[in-house]
Amino acid sequence: MDTESDRVLIFDTTLRDGEQSPGISLNASEKLEIAQQLARLGVDVIEAGFPIASPGDFEAVQGISRQVQGPVIAGLARTQFADIDAAAQAVRDAERPRIHTFISTSDIHIVHQLQTTREDVLGQARAAVAHAREFVEDVEFSPMDATRSEIEFTAEVVSAAIEEGATTINIPDTVGYAMPHEYAAWLERLYELVPALHNVVLSVHCHDDLGLAVANSFAGVRAGARQVECAINGIGERAGNASLEEIVMLLHTRAADIGLRTAINTREIARTSRLVSRLTGYVVQPNKAIVGRNAFAHESGIHQDGVLKERTTYEIMEATSVGLAANSLVLGKHSGRHALRQALENLGIEVQGQALNTAFKRFKEIADRKKTVSAMDLEALVTDELREDIAGFTLEGYELEAGTDREPRAAVTLRTPAGEIVRGEFHGDGSVDSVFGAINSASGIQATLREFRIDAVTEGQDALGEVSVVLVLGSRSASGQGVATDVIEAAARAYLRALTTLARSEDAAAPADVDLAPAP
Amino acid sequence: MDTESDRVLIFDTTLRDGEQSPGISLNASEKLEIAQQLARLGVDVIEAGFPIASPGDFEAVQGISRQVQGPVIAGLARTQFADIDAAAQAVRDAERPRIHTFISTSDIHIVHQLQTTREDVLGQARAAVAHAREFVEDVEFSPMDATRSEIEFTAEVVSAAIEEGATTINIPDTVGYAMPHEYAAWLERLYELVPALHNVVLSVHCHDDLGLAVANSFAGVRAGARQVECAINGIGERAGNASLEEIVMLLHTRAADIGLRTAINTREIARTSRLVSRLTGYVVQPNKAIVGRNAFAHESGIHQDGVLKERTTYEIMEATSVGLAANSLVLGKHSGRHALRQALENLGIEVQGQALNTAFKRFKEIADRKKTVSAMDLEALVTDELREDIAGFTLEGYELEAGTDREPRAAVTLRTPAGEIVRGEFHGDGSVDSVFGAINSASGIQATLREFRIDAVTEGQDALGEVSVVLVLGSRSASGQGVATDVIEAAARAYLRALTTLARSEDAAAPADVDLAPAP
Repeated sequence: MDTESDRVLIFDTTLRDGEQSPGISLNASEKLEIAQQLARLGVDVIEAGFPIASPGDFEAVQGISRQVQGPVIAGLARTQFADIDAAAQAVRDAERPRIHTFISTSDIHIVHQLQTTREDVLGQARAAVAHAREFVEDVEFSPMDATRSEIEFTAEVVSAAIEEGATTINIPDTVGYAMPHEYAAWLERLYELVPALHNVVLSVHCHDDLGLAVANSFAGVRAGARQVECAINGIGERAGNASLEEIVMLLHTRAADIGLRTAINTREIARTSRLVSRLTGYVVQPNKAIVGRNAFAHESGIHQDGVLKERTTYEIMEATSVGLAANSLVLGKHSGRHALRQALENLGIEVQGQALNTAFKRFKEIADRKKTVSAMDLEALVTDELREDIAGFTLEGYELEAGTDREPRAAVTLRTPAGEIVRGEFHGDGSVDSVFGAINSASGIQATLREFRIDAVTEGQDALGEVSVVLVLGSRSASGQGVATDVIEAAARAYLRALTTLARSEDAAAPADVDLAPAP
Repeated sequence: MDTESDRVLIFDTTLRDGEQSPGISLNASEKLEIAQQLARLGVDVIEAGFPIASPGDFEAVQGISRQVQGPVIAGLARTQFADIDAAAQAVRDAERPRIHTFISTSDIHIVHQLQTTREDVLGQARAAVAHAREFVEDVEFSPMDATRSEIEFTAEVVSAAIEEGATTINIPDTVGYAMPHEYAAWLERLYELVPALHNVVLSVHCHDDLGLAVANSFAGVRAGARQVECAINGIGERAGNASLEEIVMLLHTRAADIGLRTAINTREIARTSRLVSRLTGYVVQPNKAIVGRNAFAHESGIHQDGVLKERTTYEIMEATSVGLAANSLVLGKHSGRHALRQALENLGIEVQGQALNTAFKRFKEIADRKKTVSAMDLEALVTDELREDIAGFTLEGYELEAGTDREPRAAVTLRTPAGEIVRGEFHGDGSVDSVFGAINSASGIQATLREFRIDAVTEGQDALGEVSVVLVLGSRSASGQGVATDVIEAAARAYLRALTTLARSEDAAAPADVDLAPAP
């Protein structure tokens, strides 16, 4: 691990705290895809999940540990030994494994939630770190809700954790309550109370409930922290975590004044943001800093005029520095297989054999309907299609009749995971509703729609529609995405993908996830 | 104006800087509706627009000045006298009018954009403030791009503005470049250089390019600023302005430590946010602080457990404090006219006469298709329907046939603004595309789709779909929204609303807007 004094480590928790956001439910292959992109982005640590929380979480952390090279892979664990054992097992095969263990030090948490005493918390912290060190050399400890804790007690717990071998101490503002000057003062005081803190990496983990996650993280860095915990698009519990892209671009853009650096390849930021948004179904608002559609756009005449005359009049960053290249058209309907592979390679996507055939087939379908296929279109299609390597429900065809004067009627033909062809019909309240009802009827699975969203991938009348849905079946939920020129078809594809996930977890007779994932 | 030392004035620029966001194009009645809601929210100042920019902007500012009681109404103006004259005329009928004039003080702007000298800038600032004071007593001056300006020169310009009678001095971080400690130090130094600054209101205006707009604004307040310029949902140029809801809830939630207060009725925040999102077509991401769908949601088991045991374990604010009431069902298909009016009144919406009839008809249509109509549904419907008081294109009916094995075909019947019934048909690439093509064919207006989005208003299979579109015709663009249980119908309604706006401005033979709106 790079420990030079001017280097800030980026600890990404998109797959742990981010994945705890309501409505997000990534499967193992989606988590792996995000982890691989995070490695390309150059994050120092990937918190891949909370292994004790569910068999699915365990497998995802294990899969990422085995397949993702570069970053440290961390697994989260409460101070219970069972948690630490599970985390240790899940990260065991990583190049550089880390166990991240935590317990609350605030009285409000100790009394109301843990229902124990400070002495017990101190003992648990000490034992947990010592136990984790039996498995790995790289152990992180977090006193949860630190910013609402008595600092003297937190200092005692932190000292114990360092004595037992913790190599990173993370100070979470768990409820997003801190103000920058207050958080910085808190950390400075902690350094005074725990001189040994100078021998380990101090980390910050801030939530955005009051809109201050990035500012608090930055105040922490100015107070001496050299690891920032953050998430792509700022996702996470409630209002989310500090946005990785914002804290990184702040450190880069103002590097001359701040004097610190990260190892992030900023040109991968935009693509990482789109991938996470697509797979989680969490939209990025147009005015989101760095990665919003308009973050680099200039509406007003004065600004446009200024930018044309001299870029720096209104731009402090270049759009290309975060990977926002011009969305130039790349392919048309006459483009061949070789051109497609070349275009995908330019996007950093390597596709061979059967996957290339699938991609080419889908590309041709789209190119027949759409004059030009842009880089953004390709990226959406690839995310939509190529990661499916398991048999699922697929759409053979649909028919829809709708209108203001008649009840909409839809008929669908599906191929089941077993290869069977089934048909279903439905009269619903609306077009999409009818198609979803027909799918339920054909599949025999009575899933319920919880969320539904359509976005245009690019501009214009023939833009690809990208649909995200979240379905619920009993106590389980699953999300799915679909892309097509026809929004009804895209909706059907998204629905079927979510249905496949639901059906799979039903087949496995998996228990409902143990619902204990916390967020320091 | 309240000038007690612990009172922070909230200056809302949703309708000026916010409306300059790419793709946003509010008409005068939409602007008025937002301004009235801002007055209910209790903002101190509404920056209603930039009167010289276009006839539409002028009319909107004039309409708001005449019809909105409570807040100061401000009009923006460059230092040119024509700008100030237009602003003065537009705000003249306001209870408490303000002219806000600005000019850049940074060399990069002076040299590259204004192509003039510091001496000229100083002279223009002095003359502009003096001229504005001939019309109104309340004059605000902004040295644009202040944070990248030489502070001594900016101090000179600010001193001149105060000498000429400026009552508010606003220090914009125009390009979102400042860091909180740096911005605070800059303002503290300005106080030293300009002692007269203590006699006027110091204001902050921060952009969010590096994710620090709220933190910078707060640092400014701690340095002595008593006016914060901000926008609902943080909209504005590029990454937008400081979010009103975040800075306000920061000041409220941490009031015991900060010791300042605002006049905002925080319970109106959620509704204001939804209204602005709906009318601008700018989605609020789920993890947006304060107003995101998940800002108050708790996913993880530990958190839910904690919140059940003791709310404050994981919540620093109550959802009800920002007006997020439970989305309880309010009406069913058997509810009558009286129940509807009562439910609307509970939402703060007064509806009488013909508007109530229209609302009731639409409510019945929806209630026939949807089991229960919730408060959120009603709010969406009312926004969708009731503000239309002008004749436009309306949907009489549509028919759609689509499927994987055939080209989609749509037929629509419209009523034109002149009351004529017209029909059109189209074979498109997708369902929505076909309906839009059929509308173009029926109306004879060949508009082009630039943006398209569908969201579900509430959860579940029978949720209302809410569609936003942006259409382009020649050099003009217009947005429209539509709500229905059927997304195809909602899309048609949205398209027709945007088309109505485009057709109206074509009839008026209005020139393309003078493209000079700036953002201090």
